[in-house]
Amino acid sequence: MARIGIIGSEGRMGQALARAVADAGHEYAGGVDRGGDPAALADRSDVLVDFSAPVALEGNVHAAIGAGIPIVIGTTGLEERHHTAIDNVARAIAVLQTGNTSLGVTVLAQLVREAAARLGPDWDIEIVEMHHRRKVDAPSGTALLLGEAAAQGRGIELATNRESGRDGHTGERQPGAIGFAALRGGTVAGEHSVILAGEEERLVLSHGAENRMIFARGAVRAAEWLIGRAPGRYTMDDVLDPAAR
Amino acid sequence: MARIGIIGSEGRMGQALARAVADAGHEYAGGVDRGGDPAALADRSDVLVDFSAPVALEGNVHAAIGAGIPIVIGTTGLEERHHTAIDNVARAIAVLQTGNTSLGVTVLAQLVREAAARLGPDWDIEIVEMHHRRKVDAPSGTALLLGEAAAQGRGIELATNRESGRDGHTGERQPGAIGFAALRGGTVAGEHSVILAGEEERLVLSHGAENRMIFARGAVRAAEWLIGRAPGRYTMDDVLDPAAR
Amino acid sequence: MARIGIIGSEGRMGQALARAVADAGHEYAGGVDRGGDPAALADRSDVLVDFSAPVALEGNVHAAIGAGIPIVIGTTGLEERHHTAIDNVARAIAVLQTGNTSLGVTVLAQLVREAAARLGPDWDIEIVEMHHRRKVDAPSGTALLLGEAAAQGRGIELATNRESGRDGHTGERQPGAIGFAALRGGTVAGEHSVILAGEEERLVLSHGAENRMIFARGAVRAAEWLIGRAPGRYTMDDVLDPAAR
Amino acid sequence: MARIGIIGSEGRMGQALARAVADAGHEYAGGVDRGGDPAALADRSDVLVDFSAPVALEGNVHAAIGAGIPIVIGTTGLEERHHTAIDNVARAIAVLQTGNTSLGVTVLAQLVREAAARLGPDWDIEIVEMHHRRKVDAPSGTALLLGEAAAQGRGIELATNRESGRDGHTGERQPGAIGFAALRGGTVAGEHSVILAGEEERLVLSHGAENRMIFARGAVRAAEWLIGRAPGRYTMDDVLDPAAR
Repeated sequence: MARIGIIGSEGRMGQALARAVADAGHEYAGGVDRGGDPAALADRSDVLVDFSAPVALEGNVHAAIGAGIPIVIGTTGLEERHHTAIDNVARAIAVLQTGNTSLGVTVLAQLVREAAARLGPDWDIEIVEMHHRRKVDAPSGTALLLGEAAAQGRGIELATNRESGRDGHTGERQPGAIGFAALRGGTVAGEHSVILAGEEERLVLSHGAENRMIFARGAVRAAEWLIGRAPGRYTMDDVLDPAAR
Repeated sequence: MARIGIIGSEGRMGQALARAVADAGHEYAGGVDRGGDPAALADRSDVLVDFSAPVALEGNVHAAIGAGIPIVIGTTGLEERHHTAIDNVARAIAVLQTGNTSLGVTVLAQLVREAAARLGPDWDIEIVEMHHRRKVDAPSGTALLLGEAAAQGRGIELATNRESGRDGHTGERQPGAIGFAALRGGTVAGEHSVILAGEEERLVLSHGAENRMIFARGAVRAAEWLIGRAPGRYTMDDVLDPAAR
Repeated sequence: MARIGIIGSEGRMGQALARAVADAGHEYAGGVDRGGDPAALADRSDVLVDFSAPVALEGNVHAAIGAGIPIVIGTTGLEERHHTAIDNVARAIAVLQTGNTSLGVTVLAQLVREAAARLGPDWDIEIVEMHHRRKVDAPSGTALLLGEAAAQGRGIELATNRESGRDGHTGERQPGAIGFAALRGGTVAGEHSVILAGEEERLVLSHGAENRMIFARGAVRAAEWLIGRAPGRYTMDDVLDPAAR
Repeated sequence: MARIGIIGSEGRMGQALARAVADAGHEYAGGVDRGGDPAALADRSDVLVDFSAPVALEGNVHAAIGAGIPIVIGTTGLEERHHTAIDNVARAIAVLQTGNTSLGVTVLAQLVREAAARLGPDWDIEIVEMHHRRKVDAPSGTALLLGEAAAQGRGIELATNRESGRDGHTGERQPGAIGFAALRGGTVAGEHSVILAGEEERLVLSHGAENRMIFARGAVRAAEWLIGRAPGRYTMDDVLDPAAR
């Protein structure tokens, strides 16, 4: 049982995190939000989980360093300078930063990278995602993350090979293209499929989320895993590495 | 066992039809292509199947009328005047004209129309299709046919409610929209899914073709069914009507 | 806005119903459970929704008759004599009894019946469902309901054509069989697919529930619809009939 | 361009292999079947592909050794002593033996092994496959191969954790079980899905074959790859290893 402190505790994700901490049998060490004191929270925690805002990052990581405890960073919208700061912090404590804390999506991205590498450029790659009707952009961030994994596997750049939003007279598919399609409707929490289509056979690698709790649960698992690790910068891949269990 | 004559016999579809006629235990009465004589073919056939070109339509239907036999018309690219001609022919003989002879797609369109009608406008409709990498346009004709069926079920116009090729900042989904997405890759013969997404539940109605023979097989079944019918204009829906078997 | 009274209000479904009543903008007229007085509840309600137990059925319907209001019955485990009682009640008030209040499943069953009827016995029918790891029986009740719909469409008996739990040397598929397969795992709320497999083409008709609220929502919709209807026995099909809106 | 000799040339697979050799731009060096002379064929080939029978294995590998060329063995029904013989042969020449030559299935098995290893025992594993109505056994050999991959990934035995053919009162799912379900119908060439179901999220890893040519194509690719390799025993995994291209 670990004492887990939440930064950004009043947001939708913060509330889900509090529930996930309890569900996992850990102790909720408390939460802070804008104006709160992360240092005091760090002093009574074994690990911090930060889903707040980029502007608060510096204060949060210093609180962790001060208490000598690790920190999970799930805050989105980080820029280059934030990443540099995280790299520096990782010399003193264990830090795990990630754009997606779902265990399933993390594994899916690994599988996509490998499948793309092994099957080679003759297999066409398409990524289709479905989200609820309120989502305002396409493709989803996770679809792009999967596209990056596919591009890495193939050793190409996603930016110059992306084919998105087909409509009308498109011409034949470009060799090497990575295609994206976005479905919207209902209350779908998030579904992603990566299709690798070869000559008369197809692989489809999919992930479906039943709701948003999975992101909180993944963050708590990352927090557990991080306690007692050597200083360094970690990713969700590390959490799931069977050799590191 | 019926004697079935094929017009447009040398094309890819004509060859598939010859095979489908034999597979179904019927007699291949012969085939004609550009420059051939449909009247002579009609004289030794119980029914004609025409997958040729709009320009040949008039000659073909007159051959059928001359021999007093029915005709299945699967030719694509028909215009208003061709449809008027078919209506006139249907006063003398039984004619079945269709843009898609697959039994499965015909049934799927019926189911989509009904599901859209019963579930009402609160259920968002999305249509996603996948075809081989050589296909040059999107969405597929069959996807549009399914979209028309959905629009009919809802009592709206497809043209003014179509949302296709989402990419970038799209904003929230428009109420009542019918969305289309196109996947391309490999050698996929044709797959279509119609998704009806409501509050926390979803219906998905899909059709998959393993290869193009299904279109030939459906045309032969239509031809069988048409023999002995009263003059009139029929559709694939009629062929599949349990009450008409 | 209607006043909706809930019988069986303390169960899991009763609580979901209270939420669904509020979500839909209706007034929660109150709830009774074992030992409560349905007659008093009926007096302050426009419609009753009963998800209690078969033993309470008689008292509940009499409460509805006494107040002259309709009743939705979603109680499971009803026997022949309960159905006879409901038929009698339906001479005095509007009654809707159903084993599944999901709108999506109701529509799916209709579509399956029709597809089976139209496609005929050459298309093999398979039903596959997935539920969470705690479910103790297979196939699910909804899978059987869909199998019944398929059998009705074909004009056969499900009992004598059911093929379930294939394993080992099974021999070739029996012509006319309706196959069932059950997947179990995770926290899946309920997914059902009906596959109709023909020669080189396939229809797949699927329903997925994101969680159990859909059943409560469907019951509330049935209740709304029932207010003001003539005495008689109704089903979920009637609620979704576009002609009856 | 390589000269490829086929052993077992008159069977269904042998004919597909001849076509695949030509499609890939190689030279069909000839074929032998029962009673033919593999040594003469080996003398005019750069590589042999053997899809014959276990009884012919010894003669075939000796022909390859005699000519100093590699051999792909896709023959099924091999026993322990055949595998021992292959190990011995692999000291002299390059040998690739496999039960499934599809590139897609080979990659799928790798992905399943990894996903199972990374996600750990809290994710329930289910394997569902669909094949044509003539298939007489269940689950398919490929489903079992995928089940073995899942069991390896988890570090357990498949034999003692297999749950197949659920029907009736099954009780809750056994922790650690690997479930199998078999669908049969139509003309489906072969579809396999491995589902990993966790708390409120799910991964699905699927493969679909459009027809049997993919197995021939994979064998030809293995043959190409094998030419010039050092003596040793190889698998399809090696063929797809990006590091070995």
